[in-house]
Amino acid sequence: MQEIQSDKSDEGSITGESKVHVFDSALQLVSGESLQPFSVAYCSWGKLNADKSNTILICHALTGDQFAAGDNPMTQRPGWWNTMIGPGKPLDPEKYFIICSNVIGGCSGSTGPASINPETGKPYGLDFPVITITDMVRAQEKLLEALGIDSLLTVIGGSMGGMQVLEWANSFPEKVFSAIPIAGSARHSAQNIAFHEVGRQAIMADIDWHGGDYHAEKTQPRKGLAVARMAAHITYLSETALTRKFGRNLQDRDALSYGFEADFQIESYLRHQGFTFVERFDANSYLYITRAMDYFDIAAEHNGKLAEAFTNSDTRFCVVSFTSDWLFPTSESIHVVRALNAAGANVSFVEIESDKGHDAFLLDEPEMFKTLNGFLSSVAKDRGLL
Amino acid sequence: MQEIQSDKSDEGSITGESKVHVFDSALQLVSGESLQPFSVAYCSWGKLNADKSNTILICHALTGDQFAAGDNPMTQRPGWWNTMIGPGKPLDPEKYFIICSNVIGGCSGSTGPASINPETGKPYGLDFPVITITDMVRAQEKLLEALGIDSLLTVIGGSMGGMQVLEWANSFPEKVFSAIPIAGSARHSAQNIAFHEVGRQAIMADIDWHGGDYHAEKTQPRKGLAVARMAAHITYLSETALTRKFGRNLQDRDALSYGFEADFQIESYLRHQGFTFVERFDANSYLYITRAMDYFDIAAEHNGKLAEAFTNSDTRFCVVSFTSDWLFPTSESIHVVRALNAAGANVSFVEIESDKGHDAFLLDEPEMFKTLNGFLSSVAKDRGLL
Repeated sequence: MQEIQSDKSDEGSITGESKVHVFDSALQLVSGESLQPFSVAYCSWGKLNADKSNTILICHALTGDQFAAGDNPMTQRPGWWNTMIGPGKPLDPEKYFIICSNVIGGCSGSTGPASINPETGKPYGLDFPVITITDMVRAQEKLLEALGIDSLLTVIGGSMGGMQVLEWANSFPEKVFSAIPIAGSARHSAQNIAFHEVGRQAIMADIDWHGGDYHAEKTQPRKGLAVARMAAHITYLSETALTRKFGRNLQDRDALSYGFEADFQIESYLRHQGFTFVERFDANSYLYITRAMDYFDIAAEHNGKLAEAFTNSDTRFCVVSFTSDWLFPTSESIHVVRALNAAGANVSFVEIESDKGHDAFLLDEPEMFKTLNGFLSSVAKDRGLL
Repeated sequence: MQEIQSDKSDEGSITGESKVHVFDSALQLVSGESLQPFSVAYCSWGKLNADKSNTILICHALTGDQFAAGDNPMTQRPGWWNTMIGPGKPLDPEKYFIICSNVIGGCSGSTGPASINPETGKPYGLDFPVITITDMVRAQEKLLEALGIDSLLTVIGGSMGGMQVLEWANSFPEKVFSAIPIAGSARHSAQNIAFHEVGRQAIMADIDWHGGDYHAEKTQPRKGLAVARMAAHITYLSETALTRKFGRNLQDRDALSYGFEADFQIESYLRHQGFTFVERFDANSYLYITRAMDYFDIAAEHNGKLAEAFTNSDTRFCVVSFTSDWLFPTSESIHVVRALNAAGANVSFVEIESDKGHDAFLLDEPEMFKTLNGFLSSVAKDRGLL
């Protein structure tokens, strides 16, 4: 996802709690493997109410983390969803107990390929088992159980976060009062798998990757990871947004250089995106998390019938997409909505007019905020919170 | 571009002539540099008529070459435009004298970064001057002059070939009786520059690139070039075509591997595209030719007014685009058509319904063939050939 310099950071960052929960038990994975022990790093904002009915779980995207709001202590930058979380904002810590955890496979504190493999005493590297979106959700469910939370008022997330939201509704329908998948999908498309494969090949092509054992070599596949990020970043923006923001403008020069410097602003911007990303993200995590997204296909567990994933569900769904998102286009959300309708689920669907592309879910999109405010008020009321 | 296994190769390949013309004179480049000597490799099919009025120049795309028809002696595969060239096809060697030359900067015989630098006796590498689409056209014009051909019945090409076609009409309007830019553009967009930059960074990230001096090191940046090709290849196809062709189908397996093998057909296909490409293409040529495309912006030479490029032109234009092409979308062709209309040029425009994406121009597209047959018959008649 795009790194956002929130334009609302002056409003005062909100204070949350950052913790890591270590589980001595095993996390059973879809692959048949298991992780033991495993850790889940999370942040929370607001207070759990007496009957534990006001929890909102935020699921982050591919390169996100648990630092959704406030300041990110690892990057010293504002949380990635500061626009969404805070007093008076849709996810209001004065009303709700809000949790966001780093996914299993990640690199911000939850167990991932950079974690120590207890069998060897060294980082897992490629010995880390391949994880799935379902495994991410199972780890989140273990965390909530450990915190004594039986059910969620809402589970919300964009992009891969939206995938997790749908998987929550599939795996634990009785624990999900409402679900908000934004710019998501119930399966990863061929084009999206293709872009991920390019990113993985770029990382693996880097001589500093060392078959995933770069920690032992005290190197990092920085160039390969930067290329992966650059390629992915293009897919997060719309062509319109790129043209408006950069067009063919030159970077700090009056004329073409007739060389391979970053003549154009778009080149300079992409290089910056690539090389700042490698400061905060683990290359093997990028391999594992993209793989989890590629493997995601809820219908496959139900004989190809997506509706069966949501049969007899009491969950209230609010599905959101953006007109200019070509990575997780509206057609993917409509595919989900049709299945929910076929399953007789309670669903509302909003396609938001935006020219900002996939990353719109991270940006200041008033119509999205309005939609979410309305939906959350409604479910909070239904739950007896308002 | 996609490597095409022509389904019409059984119809008998046509025999052409393959030659290299060596110029002792200098080719003046837009950058202010020059190339001396320089070579232009070309193929031709058919015969020049007595009044030298039946020449069709084909301009190739980024990774194309002069072997548009017949068999490619370098790859042992059918020519990239066998669907278009041959008896009874739109570009008919029984009627026309057809020429296709490898672009300056290329790697199929024309002078490029892998050629020997006369000053050092070694391959140019990054000492090769940055070239432009205009330089490619100037080299083609020198070739035609050397062959005694004063004017072209038609200049035709797709993608970067379409850029050259428009540049021909801009640089040498008096020599262009008609022009057929297909899936082209008068400028490279921010998104397209971005994808090219990813490809270049992938090549430069490869330790075997050696700052462009890989020939001296007896290596090749194979992995980097393969990644560049994979990323680019996604942009040549439509999302619909990828879904129809591959979807989430698995490759030679019944279940997910829970590893990083090519589980999905789309992954296997992309890897194949990447690793076959490096057998036939020079990595530095990829850098230079993508740069030439990025620099392309005809209007920039005319104070931002594209129409001025075509004022007082007698050239007949046939502009062609494809509905599902998101790399050179119809909007880019319409931008050209509007400028041509504003310049009072003779222009027809056809947007062809196709779900095959940018590469449609290389494929069996009956409506494209019909359009080109009609247009070429008309201009041949106007020129007194029929």
